[in-house]
Amino acid sequence: MAPTTDRVQQILSWYASDNAGTRANLHRMLMTGRIAGTGKMVILPVDQGFEHGPARSFAPNPAGYDPEYHVQLAIDSGCNAYAAPLGFIEAVAHKYAGQIPLILKVNNSDSLAKMPAPISAVTSSVKEAVRLGCSAIGYTIYPGSSARNEQYEALRELTEEAKAAGLVVVVWSYPRGEGVSKDGETAIDVAAYAAQIACQLGAHIVKVKPPKIHLEQAEAKKVYEKQQIPIGTLAERVRHVVQASFGGKRIVIFSGGEAKGTDDVLAEVKGLADGGAFGSIMGRNAFQRPKAEAVKLLQDVQDIFKAAK
Amino acid sequence: MAPTTDRVQQILSWYASDNAGTRANLHRMLMTGRIAGTGKMVILPVDQGFEHGPARSFAPNPAGYDPEYHVQLAIDSGCNAYAAPLGFIEAVAHKYAGQIPLILKVNNSDSLAKMPAPISAVTSSVKEAVRLGCSAIGYTIYPGSSARNEQYEALRELTEEAKAAGLVVVVWSYPRGEGVSKDGETAIDVAAYAAQIACQLGAHIVKVKPPKIHLEQAEAKKVYEKQQIPIGTLAERVRHVVQASFGGKRIVIFSGGEAKGTDDVLAEVKGLADGGAFGSIMGRNAFQRPKAEAVKLLQDVQDIFKAAK
Amino acid sequence: MAPTTDRVQQILSWYASDNAGTRANLHRMLMTGRIAGTGKMVILPVDQGFEHGPARSFAPNPAGYDPEYHVQLAIDSGCNAYAAPLGFIEAVAHKYAGQIPLILKVNNSDSLAKMPAPISAVTSSVKEAVRLGCSAIGYTIYPGSSARNEQYEALRELTEEAKAAGLVVVVWSYPRGEGVSKDGETAIDVAAYAAQIACQLGAHIVKVKPPKIHLEQAEAKKVYEKQQIPIGTLAERVRHVVQASFGGKRIVIFSGGEAKGTDDVLAEVKGLADGGAFGSIMGRNAFQRPKAEAVKLLQDVQDIFKAAK
Amino acid sequence: MAPTTDRVQQILSWYASDNAGTRANLHRMLMTGRIAGTGKMVILPVDQGFEHGPARSFAPNPAGYDPEYHVQLAIDSGCNAYAAPLGFIEAVAHKYAGQIPLILKVNNSDSLAKMPAPISAVTSSVKEAVRLGCSAIGYTIYPGSSARNEQYEALRELTEEAKAAGLVVVVWSYPRGEGVSKDGETAIDVAAYAAQIACQLGAHIVKVKPPKIHLEQAEAKKVYEKQQIPIGTLAERVRHVVQASFGGKRIVIFSGGEAKGTDDVLAEVKGLADGGAFGSIMGRNAFQRPKAEAVKLLQDVQDIFKAAK
Amino acid sequence: MAPTTDRVQQILSWYASDNAGTRANLHRMLMTGRIAGTGKMVILPVDQGFEHGPARSFAPNPAGYDPEYHVQLAIDSGCNAYAAPLGFIEAVAHKYAGQIPLILKVNNSDSLAKMPAPISAVTSSVKEAVRLGCSAIGYTIYPGSSARNEQYEALRELTEEAKAAGLVVVVWSYPRGEGVSKDGETAIDVAAYAAQIACQLGAHIVKVKPPKIHLEQAEAKKVYEKQQIPIGTLAERVRHVVQASFGGKRIVIFSGGEAKGTDDVLAEVKGLADGGAFGSIMGRNAFQRPKAEAVKLLQDVQDIFKAAK
Repeated sequence: MAPTTDRVQQILSWYASDNAGTRANLHRMLMTGRIAGTGKMVILPVDQGFEHGPARSFAPNPAGYDPEYHVQLAIDSGCNAYAAPLGFIEAVAHKYAGQIPLILKVNNSDSLAKMPAPISAVTSSVKEAVRLGCSAIGYTIYPGSSARNEQYEALRELTEEAKAAGLVVVVWSYPRGEGVSKDGETAIDVAAYAAQIACQLGAHIVKVKPPKIHLEQAEAKKVYEKQQIPIGTLAERVRHVVQASFGGKRIVIFSGGEAKGTDDVLAEVKGLADGGAFGSIMGRNAFQRPKAEAVKLLQDVQDIFKAAK
Repeated sequence: MAPTTDRVQQILSWYASDNAGTRANLHRMLMTGRIAGTGKMVILPVDQGFEHGPARSFAPNPAGYDPEYHVQLAIDSGCNAYAAPLGFIEAVAHKYAGQIPLILKVNNSDSLAKMPAPISAVTSSVKEAVRLGCSAIGYTIYPGSSARNEQYEALRELTEEAKAAGLVVVVWSYPRGEGVSKDGETAIDVAAYAAQIACQLGAHIVKVKPPKIHLEQAEAKKVYEKQQIPIGTLAERVRHVVQASFGGKRIVIFSGGEAKGTDDVLAEVKGLADGGAFGSIMGRNAFQRPKAEAVKLLQDVQDIFKAAK
Repeated sequence: MAPTTDRVQQILSWYASDNAGTRANLHRMLMTGRIAGTGKMVILPVDQGFEHGPARSFAPNPAGYDPEYHVQLAIDSGCNAYAAPLGFIEAVAHKYAGQIPLILKVNNSDSLAKMPAPISAVTSSVKEAVRLGCSAIGYTIYPGSSARNEQYEALRELTEEAKAAGLVVVVWSYPRGEGVSKDGETAIDVAAYAAQIACQLGAHIVKVKPPKIHLEQAEAKKVYEKQQIPIGTLAERVRHVVQASFGGKRIVIFSGGEAKGTDDVLAEVKGLADGGAFGSIMGRNAFQRPKAEAVKLLQDVQDIFKAAK
Repeated sequence: MAPTTDRVQQILSWYASDNAGTRANLHRMLMTGRIAGTGKMVILPVDQGFEHGPARSFAPNPAGYDPEYHVQLAIDSGCNAYAAPLGFIEAVAHKYAGQIPLILKVNNSDSLAKMPAPISAVTSSVKEAVRLGCSAIGYTIYPGSSARNEQYEALRELTEEAKAAGLVVVVWSYPRGEGVSKDGETAIDVAAYAAQIACQLGAHIVKVKPPKIHLEQAEAKKVYEKQQIPIGTLAERVRHVVQASFGGKRIVIFSGGEAKGTDDVLAEVKGLADGGAFGSIMGRNAFQRPKAEAVKLLQDVQDIFKAAK
Repeated sequence: MAPTTDRVQQILSWYASDNAGTRANLHRMLMTGRIAGTGKMVILPVDQGFEHGPARSFAPNPAGYDPEYHVQLAIDSGCNAYAAPLGFIEAVAHKYAGQIPLILKVNNSDSLAKMPAPISAVTSSVKEAVRLGCSAIGYTIYPGSSARNEQYEALRELTEEAKAAGLVVVVWSYPRGEGVSKDGETAIDVAAYAAQIACQLGAHIVKVKPPKIHLEQAEAKKVYEKQQIPIGTLAERVRHVVQASFGGKRIVIFSGGEAKGTDDVLAEVKGLADGGAFGSIMGRNAFQRPKAEAVKLLQDVQDIFKAAK
C-alpha cells in the first residue's frame, strides 16, 4: 500500500470519533486501487443478481454468473472496493482474502414480491462481515417509505455493532414509497434530504443517485427559490448534495443510474466529479460489458475523478 | 466550573433517587454557560436537518451545514448544552470533548414519509451516548398518537439504561395524532397533561411547546372552569405547566415555537420566564441567523431567564 | 413493626410456593399502618395524573401536584401501602425509604390517545422497582380486550421476574374492550371472571371494581340462575368475587368506584367489608379532599375493615 | 412407586432421543396412580376457571373454587397427573410437592375477549414449571388458525427449553379458525392431521378430541375413500388417530368432550380404549360432580383403560 | 466411508469460506450412499405428514406412518441423506445415530390454515439439530410472498448459527405468493431467480422444482429473448438454473414434482441429470410405493445421476 496522503488524512479527521479499527478500514478503502490517496473512490457493486434476477443481470455477459468474475474485475480495474450480498462475498472471501476491501451488502430486496411498502430484508450481519474479512457493511434505506422506522432502527443496530467491530458503514439512500412521487425519487431537494438522513444516522459513506432538477416538497421549494440555491446543472446539484452531507465532511458517492452508452456514462461522471462528488459506484454499466471494456470504463471513470482535484 | 449554588442543590434534591452519575451530569448541565448556577437553562438543539431537511434548515445560513458550526455556536453563546442526532454529535464529539454537555437525540422523524401514526425512529442508543461522552439523551414522545405504547415502552428501556449509565433523560413531549385536534396540540390542558406524562415516565427534563389558551378535552375543561385555573396569559399558562410537572419539582423548558422576529421571540421568552419556566430550547431561531446575531439572541434569552429570579 | 398475627400467618400460608422475599414483602404490606395484622388492607393509589391528566386529578386539591403530598398522606393516614407510576415513586423513594411499602405501577394509559383496543403501556420494570426499594409491582389487565394476549404475556414476564426478585404482584383487573358491553364491565359474572383470571395469572393481590347486579354472558347467566348464586346485595356479590378468587385464598381488594359523597363512599365500603373483601384501594376520593378530611376518610375506611372481622 | 413394567419401558423406547430427565418424568407419569404400569393414563385437567369463567366451572360443585380440591381429587382418585394454569398450580405446589405429577398449562384463553384468530396467551413458562416442581408443561395449539405460526413458534421455544430442563411436553391440539369449518373441528381427517402436527412439533403426549365421522378436506377425502380407511366407529377413528401419531409411537390421549351423563361418558371412554387410545383427560365431567361420584367416575374410566389391554 | 474423490474436493473448494465442521458435514453428505463420491446426491425427504396430513401421505403405504420406516428406506436404498421435521427426526436420531446424514427441516407449513401470505412456521432450531446429531438444516423460502422479509431474516439467523455450528444449510426455494402467478411458480425465469436468491442468502445446497418453459416477468422475458437463452428442453432449463446458481458453484438439486408413473419420474430425472443437476430430492414418489419398489426407484434415480458424468 502506498504511503498515506494529506487529503486522506484530512478526510479521516472528519471521522475522529470512530475507533482505530474503523479508521483503518476507511483508510484501506481510500488507499486501494488506481486512485488510492486522492480521496476519491470507485466501487464495483454486484447485488443485481438478487435485486433484478440472474438473467437480467448476467446474461449479457455470462461470465458474470460466476462470483469470482466480479471480485477479479474489481481488482483488475483498480477499484477501491467490491460490494455484494452474503452469497457472492462468501464465495470469494476465503480465496481473495486481503486483495481488495470487501463491502458486505447486508440487506437486499428481490423483484419477485409485492411489498406493502419499500423495505429490504436484512440478509446478513456484522458478525458475518467480520468472519468474512470485510472492511465495511452496506445497507439500503428508503426514505419516504412508511416502513422507514423499521429500516432506520435495523440500521441503528447494525451501525452500532459495525462501529464497535471496526467496520465502515456505507448507506445506500434511495427515496421511495408513499411519501414521494416517482419524480420525487430523484428530485434535488429529496436527494439532499436523503443524504442528510444517512449522515445523521451515522453513515461513514453515503450513496445516492445523481439528482435531477425537479423540486418535490412544497416547503423545501420555497426555500430553494428564496435562497436561490443553484441547481441548474448536474455539477451544481451534486455540489448541493455534498454540502447537505455535513458541509462536505462525509463521503458521498453516486450511482451510475440507468445511463448505458459509454459516452453518456462518462459525461455523467464528469458532472459528478465537477460537483465535488467523492466518487462513483458502478455496477451494471461495468460488469455487463466484456471484461476488457469494463476495465477500460472503470479506469476512465477513475481517471475523471483523479483529474477532478 | 464555578462553585455550585443553593438553587442548583435545591434542584438536585428533587432527583435524590438518581445515582451520582446522573446527578453529576445534571449538575454539569446546570453549571455550564453564562447562566450557570441560576437553575435556568438555555439549550441549542439542532435536529432540523433530520426533521425538516437540510436546505430548509441550513440554507438561510449555510455555515450551518457543517456540524462544527452548531456546537461552536452553543459554546460561544454560553448555552448550557447542545442537542443533536447521532451524525451531528459523532462529527464533533471527539474534537469538542468536555467543552459543553452534549444531549444525544436518540429518536428522529423525517418529513419525507407518511406514517400511519406519529412515531419517530429510534436512531441511536444509550451505549452510543456513553461512547460519545454525552451527558444526556433526548427522546420525543407524541402523546395522543395511537402508536403511544410503542413510544412509551421504547422510552422506558432507554430511560432505565440511561439512568443506570449515569445519564440525564430529556423528553420532548409533543401531543400529536388521532387523539388530539390540530388546536389541541398546543392547548393548555393538553400541554400540562403532556408534561405530566413525561414526568411520570421518569424524565429529568421535560420540553414542551409554549401552551395556548385553548382547552381541548371536555372533561378537563369542566375542571379548569370549576377550579378557575388562571390560563389567560402565557405566564399563567407556563406556571400551570410547571405546576403540572410535579409541583415544580421537575425541570420544564419550552421551545421557541414558530416565532421569527427577534422581538417576538424575546417577548415570548419573557412570558416563559415570568411563568417560572426553567429555560428555553431554541434552534432555528438561533442557527438560521448570522452567527453574531445568533449569539446575541441566545444571550438575550439567557439574560431574561437570569433576571427572572 | 408489631408482632405478626395468626390471621396474617394464615394468609401467608396460601402463598407457600413463593420465596421468602415475596412473603416478607407481603407480610410488610399486611403489617403496616393502622390496621396492621388484621389481614385487611387500605391502599392509596395515585396514578390519575397519568390516567386522567394533572388538572382533573390535582386541581381540586393543588397540594397534590407535588408527589411528596401523597406518600405523606398515605403514611399520615396509616395506610398499608402507596401505589404510583415511576415518576411519582422516583420523586419520593429516596427520601421516604422504608417508611411505607411502595407499589410501583408498571403500566399506564393516558386519556389522550385513541387506541384500537384497551391496552396500557409498560412504563417501568421490576428492575426499577428493586432499585427504588418497592415492595410490589402493580399491573393493569383489561380482560375482554382483543389485545389481551399482549397484556397477559407482558404480565407473565413481569410476574416471573418480580417473584424471583422477592416482590409482590398486584393486578388491577378491569374488563374492557370489544368482548364486553359497557354494562358488562362491572357485571357480577364478568367481575368474578376478571378476578379468577388475575389469580390464575399468578397475582398475589387482585383489585377489581365493586360489581353490579348485571349478568353479561349468556352461558354464565344460565349457571347463576340454575345454581341460584346470591348476587342481590353488594355484600353477596363481593362474597362471590372473593369465592371466585381461589375460594378466598387470594387477597382481593376493591376500588372506590365513582362514588363521591363521604356517606356513599363509606356505605359502599361497608358493603365490601360485609362481603369479606380484603380491603380497599382509594385514590381520588381521598387525595382530592383537603388533607385532614382525607386522613379522616381513609381512617374511617380502615375502621370499617378492622371491625369487619 | 411400583417397579417399572415392560410396557412402560417399551413406551419409553420411543422417546430414546430425550434426556434422562424427561424420560424420568414421563416414567413418573406412567407409573403413578391406580393404573400405573399399564401404559395408560388418566389425567385431571382444571383450566376451565380460566377458559370458561369461575361460576360456569365451579358453581355446580363449589368445593372446586378452592385449588386444593382438585389436586386432592386427582390424588384420591388415583389419576396419573394433574394439569392446571399457573395460579392453580402455584396455590398447591409447595404443599403437595411430589404427591402427584403436575402439568403446568402454560397457555390459556378466556372467553371474554373476541380475538381476530384463535390463539391463547402464553401465561407461564418452563422456568416456572421447574420452580414449581412440575413434571410437564401443557400447551394448546389451534391448527387451522391464521395465527398458527405464532403458536407453533412459541411452542418450539417452550419445547426446546422444556426438553433441556428434563420436562415432558403435552400438546392439546384443537383444530379451530378460518381454515376449518365448525364440523371440521372434530372431523376425522382433521383430528388425525392435528395429532400428526403435534407429534411433528415434538410433543411427547398429544391430546385431541374424540373424532367424528365427518371428512373435512377434499384432497384428504379422496384418499380416505380410495384407501378405504375404516372410520365408521369411534374405535376405528381412534385407531386411525393413534396410527397418525407416528404409527402409535407417541402417546395420544382424548378429552371427554361435552358428554355429561355417566353412561355416555363411560361408553365413549370404552370406544376410546377399544381404539387403542393411551388414555383420557377428563375435567368438567369429574370435578363438577360431588367428590365421591367424581372419584368413582375417574376410577371407572381407569378400569376401562386397564382392562383394554 | 470410501476415500474422497477429486470431484468432491472440487465441490468443497467452492465452499472454502466455510469452517471445517460445515465442510466435513458436506463431505459426509457427498460421500454417503450408492453414489458417494460422484458429486451427485439423492435425498429422501419426508415432511408431507406435516405439509399435507398423515392420511394423504402415508395411507397409500401405511408402513410410512412409522418414522423408522423412512430412515431405514433411505439407508437401504443408498440415499445420501434423509430430511424430516423435528418429530420424525427425534423419533429416530438416537437409534440410527451416524448411519445416514440427517437434515432437520426447521420450518413447516400445514394445509389446514389459510394464511394471509405464504410463510411456514419455524418449528425447530440449530440447537436441536446439533442435539440430534444432524448434518444439515433445511429451510423453505417462498420468494414472491409479501412475507418474504420475515422468511429471509429468519433464514439469516438460522444460517449464521448453523454455519457457526458446523452444519450445512439446505434451502427449499419455492416461488409463491402475491408477486407471482400460478404458472409463474415454475416459470424458468422465476426458478432461476429463486435459485439465485437462495445462493445469495448463503445456502450451501439449493432445492428448486423442475422449471417449465413459461417466462413470467416482462423485464426478464426481454432479456431471455434478446440473449437467446436456450430454455426449450428440461435439460436446457436445468442447465440455466445451475448457471444461475453462481455459475454452477453451488449444489442445486431438484424435486420430483407431481409426476407419478415410474417412467415419467425416470424420464424427468434423466432430463435433470442431462442438464447438470446435482441430484434429486424425492419423497412421495418413493415412500408411497411398497418398499421394494421404492428402493428400486431410488436406486434407478441414483444410477441415472451416476451415469450422467
